[in-house]
Amino acid sequence: MGDESNQPKESTSINENMEEEAEERDPESNPLNEPLLKRNRTLSSNPLALVGAKVSYIESLDYEINENDLFKQDWRSRSRAQVFQYIFLKWSLAFLVGLLTGIIATLINLAVENIAGFKLLAVVKYIQNERYLMGFLYFTGTNFILTFIAAILCVCFAPTAAGPGIPEIKAYLNGVDTPNMFGATTLFVKIIGSIGAVAAGLDLGKEGPLVHIGSCIASILGQGGPDNYRIKWRWLRYFNNDRDRRDLITCGASSGVCAAFRAPVGGVLFSLEEVATWWRSALLWRTFFSTAVVVVVLRATIELCHKGKCGLFGEGGLIMFDVSNVTVRYHVMDVIPVVIIGVLGGLLGSLYNYLLHKVLRLYNLINQKGKIYKLLLALSVAVFTSVCQYGLPFFAKCTPCNPSLPESVCPTNGRSGNFKQFNCPNGYYNDLATLLLTTNDDAVRNIFSTNTPYEYQPSSIIIFFALYCILGLITFGIAVPSGLFLPIILMGSGYGRLLGIIMGPHTNIDQGLFAVLGAASLMAGSMRMTVSLCVIFLELTNNLLLLPITMIVLLIAKSVGDSFNPSIYDIILHLKGLPFMDSNPEPWMRNLTVGELVDVKPQVVGFRGVEKVANIVNALRNTTHNGFPVMDGGVVPPNGMASEVTELHGIILRAHLIKVLKKKWFLAERRRTEEWEVRGKFTWVELAEREGNIEDVAITKDEMEMFVDLHPFTNTTPFTALESMSVAKALVLFRQVGLRHMLVVPKYQASGVSPVIGILTRQDLLAYNILTVFPHLAKSKRK
Amino acid sequence: MGDESNQPKESTSINENMEEEAEERDPESNPLNEPLLKRNRTLSSNPLALVGAKVSYIESLDYEINENDLFKQDWRSRSRAQVFQYIFLKWSLAFLVGLLTGIIATLINLAVENIAGFKLLAVVKYIQNERYLMGFLYFTGTNFILTFIAAILCVCFAPTAAGPGIPEIKAYLNGVDTPNMFGATTLFVKIIGSIGAVAAGLDLGKEGPLVHIGSCIASILGQGGPDNYRIKWRWLRYFNNDRDRRDLITCGASSGVCAAFRAPVGGVLFSLEEVATWWRSALLWRTFFSTAVVVVVLRATIELCHKGKCGLFGEGGLIMFDVSNVTVRYHVMDVIPVVIIGVLGGLLGSLYNYLLHKVLRLYNLINQKGKIYKLLLALSVAVFTSVCQYGLPFFAKCTPCNPSLPESVCPTNGRSGNFKQFNCPNGYYNDLATLLLTTNDDAVRNIFSTNTPYEYQPSSIIIFFALYCILGLITFGIAVPSGLFLPIILMGSGYGRLLGIIMGPHTNIDQGLFAVLGAASLMAGSMRMTVSLCVIFLELTNNLLLLPITMIVLLIAKSVGDSFNPSIYDIILHLKGLPFMDSNPEPWMRNLTVGELVDVKPQVVGFRGVEKVANIVNALRNTTHNGFPVMDGGVVPPNGMASEVTELHGIILRAHLIKVLKKKWFLAERRRTEEWEVRGKFTWVELAEREGNIEDVAITKDEMEMFVDLHPFTNTTPFTALESMSVAKALVLFRQVGLRHMLVVPKYQASGVSPVIGILTRQDLLAYNILTVFPHLAKSKRK
Repeated sequence: MGDESNQPKESTSINENMEEEAEERDPESNPLNEPLLKRNRTLSSNPLALVGAKVSYIESLDYEINENDLFKQDWRSRSRAQVFQYIFLKWSLAFLVGLLTGIIATLINLAVENIAGFKLLAVVKYIQNERYLMGFLYFTGTNFILTFIAAILCVCFAPTAAGPGIPEIKAYLNGVDTPNMFGATTLFVKIIGSIGAVAAGLDLGKEGPLVHIGSCIASILGQGGPDNYRIKWRWLRYFNNDRDRRDLITCGASSGVCAAFRAPVGGVLFSLEEVATWWRSALLWRTFFSTAVVVVVLRATIELCHKGKCGLFGEGGLIMFDVSNVTVRYHVMDVIPVVIIGVLGGLLGSLYNYLLHKVLRLYNLINQKGKIYKLLLALSVAVFTSVCQYGLPFFAKCTPCNPSLPESVCPTNGRSGNFKQFNCPNGYYNDLATLLLTTNDDAVRNIFSTNTPYEYQPSSIIIFFALYCILGLITFGIAVPSGLFLPIILMGSGYGRLLGIIMGPHTNIDQGLFAVLGAASLMAGSMRMTVSLCVIFLELTNNLLLLPITMIVLLIAKSVGDSFNPSIYDIILHLKGLPFMDSNPEPWMRNLTVGELVDVKPQVVGFRGVEKVANIVNALRNTTHNGFPVMDGGVVPPNGMASEVTELHGIILRAHLIKVLKKKWFLAERRRTEEWEVRGKFTWVELAEREGNIEDVAITKDEMEMFVDLHPFTNTTPFTALESMSVAKALVLFRQVGLRHMLVVPKYQASGVSPVIGILTRQDLLAYNILTVFPHLAKSKRK
Repeated sequence: MGDESNQPKESTSINENMEEEAEERDPESNPLNEPLLKRNRTLSSNPLALVGAKVSYIESLDYEINENDLFKQDWRSRSRAQVFQYIFLKWSLAFLVGLLTGIIATLINLAVENIAGFKLLAVVKYIQNERYLMGFLYFTGTNFILTFIAAILCVCFAPTAAGPGIPEIKAYLNGVDTPNMFGATTLFVKIIGSIGAVAAGLDLGKEGPLVHIGSCIASILGQGGPDNYRIKWRWLRYFNNDRDRRDLITCGASSGVCAAFRAPVGGVLFSLEEVATWWRSALLWRTFFSTAVVVVVLRATIELCHKGKCGLFGEGGLIMFDVSNVTVRYHVMDVIPVVIIGVLGGLLGSLYNYLLHKVLRLYNLINQKGKIYKLLLALSVAVFTSVCQYGLPFFAKCTPCNPSLPESVCPTNGRSGNFKQFNCPNGYYNDLATLLLTTNDDAVRNIFSTNTPYEYQPSSIIIFFALYCILGLITFGIAVPSGLFLPIILMGSGYGRLLGIIMGPHTNIDQGLFAVLGAASLMAGSMRMTVSLCVIFLELTNNLLLLPITMIVLLIAKSVGDSFNPSIYDIILHLKGLPFMDSNPEPWMRNLTVGELVDVKPQVVGFRGVEKVANIVNALRNTTHNGFPVMDGGVVPPNGMASEVTELHGIILRAHLIKVLKKKWFLAERRRTEEWEVRGKFTWVELAEREGNIEDVAITKDEMEMFVDLHPFTNTTPFTALESMSVAKALVLFRQVGLRHMLVVPKYQASGVSPVIGILTRQDLLAYNILTVFPHLAKSKRK
């Protein structure tokens, strides 16, 4: 029973200790089929998990409405004006989340395009002057510095900013509190780190980080500012609970996706399908509002940049992969290549998931060795990437420009463009340089480009595909903010275009379209989303006629992929040890009751309705539980039948006990208090705060002998499960209602029996934890 | 406790009695602010509701997995092959649902376009020969006959086919069983009736009926055929439960929307946002698959019809309101007209909801009087519609054709076209005839038509708008299959275009776009959907650049509308008396506990683990409850502490009790049976069937004295609520987990106390029912 430590104040120092401990561990003790962090082989451990690149204590969030007497009082006294304030603020925050996410996304785009643009222009100049070595040094040097900035920030200041952040957000919205995940430092490092890493030409995208940035903005806005500089505004206090924070972060994640792909509906659906665990119709609407704001901001920026006020930016950046000008013609026979792409996407996607899983395990061993190793790993990947991007185009043949094209288009020497001259003579272009020596966004645009059936040689596409397969595997795990979308799009478009070249004579489908379908199939094969991907691609490509074939590709790729392994996000979640609660219980959970589960846990620690201070202090000091049942004994029930009677009054939270102890609201004798005695002493604002540590509470010896009436603080309406309920059903209840504690009550009625026989928490209901205690169930384990 | 009658076999005859009873009722007893059907003023009545146009008994569905010993045995014995069969069949059914819905939608379109086409061509010929009266008689006569066919089918054969069906589907997916809603007769009548009503030019659409048709197809496929001719295929038995049927019907509803609007993503989102109560990621994917199949079928049909093989169909029908050729240009200043449209849409939408509510109440009084009145009402609406559609264009001025248009375009005399000649001389067209004397689909296309700023005179648009406001109010309630989408689109496009004409000089937005936005705003203002409407409009208009302004319009219109009244579907649900369970509990529900709710109900009827046959028979005969708690007494619990002990074993369903009685599985003495005694006697397939009536069971006097061991049939893992739980939380639990019965357990532990103090059902948790018993709570009622 009970669950996790509740010391957010201390968590920083603890986490640092933990990290060192983790770094000291024997790397050999981590076989390849276990989660990265060893867990205790008992139910309800205090688990550790990797948040970003940081080992942290994991807590549970509490979405339950704590219906105690004080809460009810507050609800009765909350006026119409306060309800209006709450609603107004909810929408204002959704607006601000959209606005800020849109602005920051624009700034990131601007920064990336300008930094990368100046870098590439300088390199082009060196090449034109045939100073190839100097060009190489300049190119590699700049990328090295940019990667260094991104990596050093992530390693030293905000390890939680490394990686895409989407698995952690998914876990957060599932009810797992991920410390330091949504702080101001993380936000800042994520922004700068993302600019650095993307501008350095690494094989990663800004899409995942933008989702994290959106969520950070939402979290910071909801709490009124960065951790130490919060606005203590009265209105904002309504949002000081896990439910409203969850809703805000969902808005933020949607806005992030929308900002990344300019796909407002896709953003909402991405949150719905992939990220969020709980969803309400009202939230759908609010999320939609946020993404609408993002789109308006992005549109305004595009208009502004078209007028050339954004430096080098106007040429690329926000104008995504528009294939709307393609006349889509296809027959029933074109279903065959579409099916082939789908099957291939599923196969390659699951293979990618498998290999990435292995690489991440290997990287974890390296990263565990210390900060310097993390940094070195990131920098070596950056150097390798630069060498390949600069060096490989020299192996490609120069292709003569199509004479029908105007000279300004082919060959190009500018920052972006479809026919890069590189080392070729005038009138010729280097097709591999077009794909490699450019920003990732431009590379996608170039490979998606339609009506250019002879632009790329098969050999160039093969080199491109092979390179990005390697880079896609080795880049993701390094300690910089990195998104998974773009690497997968690059890989997928590579083999898609290759297929297009091969099947060109037999089909009407444009090669650019093949590239788009390849990218979609690989995303579905790896990330296993369908509806949201479909809408994102719809919004990206701005071509509705593609819809039926996109749908077929996505469905096939996902089906094929699902038969091999779980989605990449699920793999990462498991790898990081985040206690994610799946929506489908395992079949063997039907054969286990919660009563059996409670039996293997230590005896539940409960309090009486009016409890001695010493007992409370001891319980808080000696356990890490966050919830304690409150029971009354000896009271004669209303029907006056029995003499020996126990009553389950409810459940009390650790945070509330600490608050009571801190305020020293003690009674001299054992008696129940009246409502007027407690009214005004504690406000719901205070009770909403979950912080506080028992070590900070000083209680004198005299006070230890006094009493506390716990009744006003007890949540009298806890969710309960009968001991005979199967774990499968308990899991459904736990997840659907969003619980932190579930009281298990006996199925027997008799005097002398405790009305609570145990408390179950998230950790107790995880399949992995149950199987450590009941290994025989694993034998009957099957899907 | 207990809940509703469970006699589907008898329901037909009962319902007929009920219907007569309802028809005999004093119409004066139905004041305008009550639901249409009077309910008993106690908790847990056997409620009646209007399904389609038929008064029916309403039951609850049971989504809970019935974990009794037999179920567990079955699960253990279910082989890999069976699991594979189940998954394969699930996907095959989703495929078939999509395929059949697509084909039937095509057939309906074909029929409507050809029937209406021949009718209109004949009328045009009469008019060209200036035989106006003859034309009028022909037009009105044809419409009269078509309406007569539709109405007589609905009135006599399948009253459940009247109306759109969407509110009933919404209620079904919420857990309310709606009798005869998804039968083969209903499907047939819905198809023919829909063809008749739409071809008759009534102001109604085929969109709502298509959703119902999709659901019917899904339901019939899932049960293996029409009610009396089911295929008794073993595989299909896996689907003989409410959960899988729910999933299938969700697929069907999505396919229907998709078929109606050619909007696959919109169809999925419509189900998600508006129709479905429970949703899983897996379902999202399967639904998406169904709609993808529909789209492929529709595309194939379009290709076929373009070759002219579909009679008159090729010219119109499936090619929806395509405005993709519009170059969308808009500035920040164009936000002003957009905001105006949104606000107007919200105001008009809520006004429409209000007025339609009143009209539906009035119509109900007329329809109650008997079948002949229903028929007369439908026919008079049809005649009125015909008179207006034919007569009003004579009041419009003839407009000269724009000389830049080719002669084949203006004026047109064919079935469809933008510049109808009607009574005008050559070279002139009648703009009102273009909008009125055509099919509804063509009318929408014509008013959406872009780059035609001077086509319509303001006076014509005003007449059009006024007429469709009246028709939209009076047509919906008549006893034919009718959809709400098209009337609202027609009305909305009318005022949208009018606004466009007024604001023309001040904005860049095209008038056709104004019409589209007007339609969107009115839909949002009346139906209160956002994301799904947005995507449907996106897919309808095939223009992604419209997205930001569409989003703004929808958000504003919904916000404005929500401040006046609930959505039209909610109003209809309430009006029909369907016990829909809302996701948000009322605030006053926090002040009431389930214990208090149970206190006002009759004593719970329970059984002992081994019960006398006579007691079971009596309980089944004297109550209508569907679930009974099973309790054991006197057993010493494992810890051997107490002497007087009662144990809550679980809950047993009426259907299972009847099955046991029918099989006469009786014991001579009071004893518990062994597992081998029951194994093989009952299969889970039998237990999955919910039919059976206690009146059909003949028990001899000797058998009455025998015993039944209820343990193997008891669901040992029921969901329970502590008596101190608030109704608000209980409601959330009930809805989230999809319960039919919730056991209330005492918070006291004492010997002699019953381990169950009551059972709550759907009816007990409805706000309306609670307020009849606790009227004082209504005073504190507020949102």
